[in-house]
Formats: sequence, structure tokens, C-alpha cells
Amino acid sequence: MSVTVAELGARERILDAAVELFARHGYDATSVAQVIAEAGVAKGGFYHHFASKEALLYEVYGDLITRQLALMDEVVAQRLGSTATLRAFVDVLVESTAASARQAIVFFREQGRLGDERTAEYRAVRRRCHDMVVRLVRDGQASGEFAKVASPEMVTFTIFGVINELPIWYRPTGRQKPAQIAAELSALVLSALGVKSA
Amino acid sequence: MSVTVAELGARERILDAAVELFARHGYDATSVAQVIAEAGVAKGGFYHHFASKEALLYEVYGDLITRQLALMDEVVAQRLGSTATLRAFVDVLVESTAASARQAIVFFREQGRLGDERTAEYRAVRRRCHDMVVRLVRDGQASGEFAKVASPEMVTFTIFGVINELPIWYRPTGRQKPAQIAAELSALVLSALGVKSA
Repeated sequence: MSVTVAELGARERILDAAVELFARHGYDATSVAQVIAEAGVAKGGFYHHFASKEALLYEVYGDLITRQLALMDEVVAQRLGSTATLRAFVDVLVESTAASARQAIVFFREQGRLGDERTAEYRAVRRRCHDMVVRLVRDGQASGEFAKVASPEMVTFTIFGVINELPIWYRPTGRQKPAQIAAELSALVLSALGVKSA
Repeated sequence: MSVTVAELGARERILDAAVELFARHGYDATSVAQVIAEAGVAKGGFYHHFASKEALLYEVYGDLITRQLALMDEVVAQRLGSTATLRAFVDVLVESTAASARQAIVFFREQGRLGDERTAEYRAVRRRCHDMVVRLVRDGQASGEFAKVASPEMVTFTIFGVINELPIWYRPTGRQKPAQIAAELSALVLSALGVKSA
């Protein structure tokens, strides 16, 4: 599925241009004027969507984690059992992270450039995703569906540790597709929690 | 166990001063002159140990991962079984990372400042640590000591995912001590690999 530049909205074009320029030249060496030129939008159009270059850096990754939180909310709304919910969480986290691997790399490399307020916002969204997994594991352990081999927090660190490092090693053209990566990670975590593979 | 500044060697004093200044003001805003002043060493002493500010940033973390590689080599030399080796790997990785959590945070925040050559050196050491765990899991799965629930690579990503994020959440004054964190992570991974807890 390929989308031409003209079909994308201005906001997406600006974000794509920013990721490309930040990746190529670094955040410090990239100006808002360059992003505007690369995106092919008007200056007013840029400032309609983003208040500053820092806001842009925040959104490069904020976009992904906000989407992930929404996807996890959708999973919870389906009211599946603990095992199926864990599999679905891992699926949406792996698929969305793999699809935005370049954005994630740029963000992690440049996150030191973000001010305290943006960093706090980003952490709050991450924290909510984290807490949803902690709650799932705690509930699954309370109901007996999951074995109490490790704390809900450690299980959660394990999942997000893999998710957060995926952009470093994942290659879209590689042997392993996101669905396989997700299936393998789920199988590993569920095995740890005493759930036999389907 | 506290060590006074005077007892530390010049190299350690310089590294400690650099971590402190990078953490407080950021890498870009810190000069070699400030590091020299904070460490209380002569300019010649600094350049005896470090060629540049970049070399210093590399060593802030390079020191830790070089130590970890040596510790893992020591574990391998003991020729324990796969389960005991995995536990020992996790022990040394968690303990050493927890002890250098501040250095790791500074490094991860500022690693974008490292040139390509230093980044390649750092990756080569990391890769060797990673490969030792991959080999251990592969051998353990081949001998039947470990279940083949996931690939050796995925098991390895799980372990290093937790290790690499530990500096973000670990608090030296917190409830969980490194030995407990290591025990919990080992229990989780070994449970996934079908090994019952001792």
C-alpha cells in the first residue's frame, strides 16, 4: 500500500519531512524553514499544526505513543481474557512500533533536546501504556490465568524493553515480519506466565 | 563503603566529574576545562587519559560495557550449566548496570553526540555481550535444558531490553535491590524457557 505525497495531509507531510531531516542532519542542524521547504507547506500551515521545532520533535514520537494508547484502549474494550488481551497488546505494540521505527530512532537519539514539560507529557502517555500492561498481568495472576513467576512490573518491563529496542534492530525488508516478532514475544511472555501455546 | 575523592585515581575522578557535569548541564554545554576543574586534575593529566570530550562521553558508558563483557567472560570460564550461566549473566548485568545507572542515563541521553567511529566501537562491545547470551540460549535449547519457546535472539532481546531500561526506573534507595531484580528477571526468563525455579 503506497500513498503519494499529495494524498497526505499537511500535518503528516510536515512530520515526515521533520523525521527525514532530523535523521539526515540531526535536530540541532535542522531549521523550521527547512522542514517547511521539505514538506512543501506554507509557513502559516506549519504554525497551524506545530508551535515550534520542539513541538515537532515531541510529535515525531508522541504521535506513535498516542496511537498506541488508543489501540490498547480498543483492545481493553473488547473484554477478552487475560491471555488474548496480552497477545493483542503485544500485536498492536509491535506492529505500530515497526511501522514507525524511523520516527522512534530519531526521537530516542534526540530526546535530550526536549524541554522538561514535553518530556513529562511524553512520560505520562508512556506511563499509561505501561500501567495497562501491569494491570492486565496483575488481574491475570489474581484470577489464576497467569502464574506468579515474576511481578506484574517485571513482566511489563520485559515487554516494553523489547518494544522500545525494536526500532534499533528491526528491518522492514528483513526476514522477520512484525506479526512473527509479536507471536514470538507473546509466546515467550505467556510461557513465562505458565500459559501453554495455542 | 565510601571512597573519598583523594583515594580515586585521576581517570575515575575525571569520569565522575564528566558524568556529574553532563547530567547537570548537558554534554554540549560542558567544556573540557570545566571537567578538568571539577575533577581537580591537571590539563596534561586529562589528556593523558582522554583525547577529547567525545572520548570522555564514550568512556562514560564504554567503561561499563567493557566491564560487563569481562564479567560475562568470567562467568563463561566457570563452565556452569546453561541455567546457572543464564542466572550468572543476569546477575552481573543487573548488578553492574544498577551500580552505573547514572552513567548509563547520561550516555543514552547524549549518544547522538558521538561520532560514527565511537558509535561503531560501542556497538561492537554490545554485540559481543549480546552474542554470548544468544549462544548460551542456543546451546541450552540444543541440549534440551531450555525449551524452544522462542528464538535465542528474542530471549536475548528480552534480557537486554530490561537491562538497558533499568537505569530509567532503578533507584538505589528503592525497595528493590539489584539482587532481587536479577532474581526476578532470571526467574521470568527461565520460566519462559521451561526451567522450574530452584
